[in-house]
Amino acid sequence: MRMYDIIARKRDGLELTRDEIYFFTRGCSTGEIPDYQTAALLMAIYLNGMSDAEILNLTLAMRDSGETADLTEIEGHTVDKHSTGGVGDKTTMIVVPMAAAIGCKVVKMSGRGLGHTGGTVDKLESIPGMRTEITRHRLVEIVNTVGACMVGHSANLAPADKKIYDLRDVTATVESLPLIASSIMCKKLACASDCILLDVKYGSGALMKDIGEAMSLANEMVKIGRSAGKKAAAVLTNMDIPLGYAVGNALEVIEAVKVLKGEQKGDLYEICIELTAHMAHLTSGLPMAECRRLSVESIDNGTAFEKFKEIVAAQGGDPKYLDDTSLFVPAQYCSEIKAERFGYISHMDTQLVGEASRILGAGRALKDDNIDFSAGIVFEKKTGDYVEPGNTIATIYTNDDEKIYEAAMMIDSALTYSDMAPEKPPLIYDVIK
Amino acid sequence: MRMYDIIARKRDGLELTRDEIYFFTRGCSTGEIPDYQTAALLMAIYLNGMSDAEILNLTLAMRDSGETADLTEIEGHTVDKHSTGGVGDKTTMIVVPMAAAIGCKVVKMSGRGLGHTGGTVDKLESIPGMRTEITRHRLVEIVNTVGACMVGHSANLAPADKKIYDLRDVTATVESLPLIASSIMCKKLACASDCILLDVKYGSGALMKDIGEAMSLANEMVKIGRSAGKKAAAVLTNMDIPLGYAVGNALEVIEAVKVLKGEQKGDLYEICIELTAHMAHLTSGLPMAECRRLSVESIDNGTAFEKFKEIVAAQGGDPKYLDDTSLFVPAQYCSEIKAERFGYISHMDTQLVGEASRILGAGRALKDDNIDFSAGIVFEKKTGDYVEPGNTIATIYTNDDEKIYEAAMMIDSALTYSDMAPEKPPLIYDVIK
Repeated sequence: MRMYDIIARKRDGLELTRDEIYFFTRGCSTGEIPDYQTAALLMAIYLNGMSDAEILNLTLAMRDSGETADLTEIEGHTVDKHSTGGVGDKTTMIVVPMAAAIGCKVVKMSGRGLGHTGGTVDKLESIPGMRTEITRHRLVEIVNTVGACMVGHSANLAPADKKIYDLRDVTATVESLPLIASSIMCKKLACASDCILLDVKYGSGALMKDIGEAMSLANEMVKIGRSAGKKAAAVLTNMDIPLGYAVGNALEVIEAVKVLKGEQKGDLYEICIELTAHMAHLTSGLPMAECRRLSVESIDNGTAFEKFKEIVAAQGGDPKYLDDTSLFVPAQYCSEIKAERFGYISHMDTQLVGEASRILGAGRALKDDNIDFSAGIVFEKKTGDYVEPGNTIATIYTNDDEKIYEAAMMIDSALTYSDMAPEKPPLIYDVIK
Repeated sequence: MRMYDIIARKRDGLELTRDEIYFFTRGCSTGEIPDYQTAALLMAIYLNGMSDAEILNLTLAMRDSGETADLTEIEGHTVDKHSTGGVGDKTTMIVVPMAAAIGCKVVKMSGRGLGHTGGTVDKLESIPGMRTEITRHRLVEIVNTVGACMVGHSANLAPADKKIYDLRDVTATVESLPLIASSIMCKKLACASDCILLDVKYGSGALMKDIGEAMSLANEMVKIGRSAGKKAAAVLTNMDIPLGYAVGNALEVIEAVKVLKGEQKGDLYEICIELTAHMAHLTSGLPMAECRRLSVESIDNGTAFEKFKEIVAAQGGDPKYLDDTSLFVPAQYCSEIKAERFGYISHMDTQLVGEASRILGAGRALKDDNIDFSAGIVFEKKTGDYVEPGNTIATIYTNDDEKIYEAAMMIDSALTYSDMAPEKPPLIYDVIK
């Protein structure tokens, strides 16, 4: 078998066999296949697409390029939740304890943030003492006793995907449905939970700007999950507006705590109720209405918040910071962004908001950049809100006062105004079960 | 400007600007643009094509990546001839002296052979003493006095093309019309003759297997030539049958001498008359009928053969070998391939014939392989000929007796027989002027 022939077949629109896909994936991760050949194949895949069978085989081949988690010692069905990533998406920190509070076994493995979206692992690590690198033995123990554990990906998780992703990133082949779907799902399959809930985001702050593409991606990933023997479902959620009000690591933990304590309702709360209900529905098979009721109850009776503290404590974090979020060290500088006109905020470019947050110190431009946990943005007004001159739209937090002006300008340019109240898009566009 | 954006634009089917193409070509040859990015762009070009303007800019950018020959001191219009390459294509050695004999100034720069097609430089070097690396000063002198010179490409001829070609070769992006056309024409433009005659071959032994593709390529190259201010024309010739009878370096020189001496007529002779007439027509503007008459006359009156000897002598070669070709050292082993049935040869796979010749020692598999000048094949029967059991079809020559059996099997399998005489395809399918 030769890589040349595999490239030529895909170039000519033919379907690659399982063996060809495994050959390519293996050679790519061992380095036997040079990057320029992989790059040519990726562009051919981008332009000619892949069949469902090819996407499944690519997913399995990338999964098999590294370790698969061994969760057999966990009692009961395990559930995983994955978000395609968005600005200010702190849902994981809320739904994992909620789901555990109503009886799910949640093994949540997350990545770090890069570019304009933050990573759950970074957010969690803003809680002093919190560890996200945990041995398999301890992870099983925590899930069996507490009900949930939130950890980082193992270094040897789907190395072929890592290699291919790095190449896609520099060859303009990121936005390819087969490549996105297989990249996400190979990691989910390697994480080995029995049930997978996918939160596929669309809109200006998401990877998929377009609802149609997001829908196709969701469908494809659910298909892959089922073909690989998992229970899988996907929820399509709007990312045209940042979720909740906070963007930035500790700032998002503080907001998550508010939601878990029942102190903050609105879009973030509603999405978390839905996501938790779907996780419970996938695992238990109980009707959705009952799962929703249980989710709401977990907030109302305080069990979800208690569960969050238990998880944090089990992973070495200090739960005092959750009981009293004023303990988090604040950023040295804060600055308010004021409205300068009358009108409704009709649109927010969430990608720009994410970039502004990164510049303030909350994210990374390069893989090894340090993160400032206290930096970020807290909005007071969002899409649909009416403002008058002088109203505070957002407060920015940073330890690097030289960045304040640039970030403020970005946030300002991320906002569009109109004289009429904009139509409110639904938070959840569709569910694929 | 970023290579990433250039890839993305071509991926999306947009037209690249002149600046973008120069940026890419420059970065590719300096090594600033990594191979994987070039590979991704090449696949995008393969699948999405290029406009005429893009192809022209790519050609000019690759030409400008190296030196352009300075032929200003040559008196009169210079003419170059290029063949897209075929098995047993020794036309250059015949038409260059013919054209010079009837008054053309011919500066012929050629490459070395690789794979199943031989290179003119290798063929010429089988004449003892013959040098194809010649200083610019001496080249001008030879052309001004003798009328023609046949040399190898300078090392710094279109280095970007070299780099890109090497990558195409391993990324399944060779057979792309924009890339083939620009790769050929950038070198022709760098060679700097005023007139360019292109011999575009189609059929089993040629790069373009299909007449339609060959026609498109010819059209594109003529367009490029004219846009770059040259007089250009293309002749579409059949390569389903090896040209003439000999395949192999010294064997082809010997056959070229026969044609120049008027001792061999047939397909090779006829094509050489046409090619020479077109070269003269491009340069002088005389009517084609007159140019044809002059071409025939150059053979009949011996001036073409005399001119060949003059050129060889001017380049250090020993013309005695041309007067008496029995001086060429013969191969140590020769073996006849006999017909085993009655019938007409209805088809010859010329690519296989080329491979057999290479195996016998006449060509290279790798760039630095040595060539055995005496090795090769001389056919006695070709497509359209009737054979009976025991008739000699071909004689193979080699100094490596272990290869005789393999080569004989290949030649045997390259031949197809039928009971009826096959239709004879025209030697020249079309002319693009």
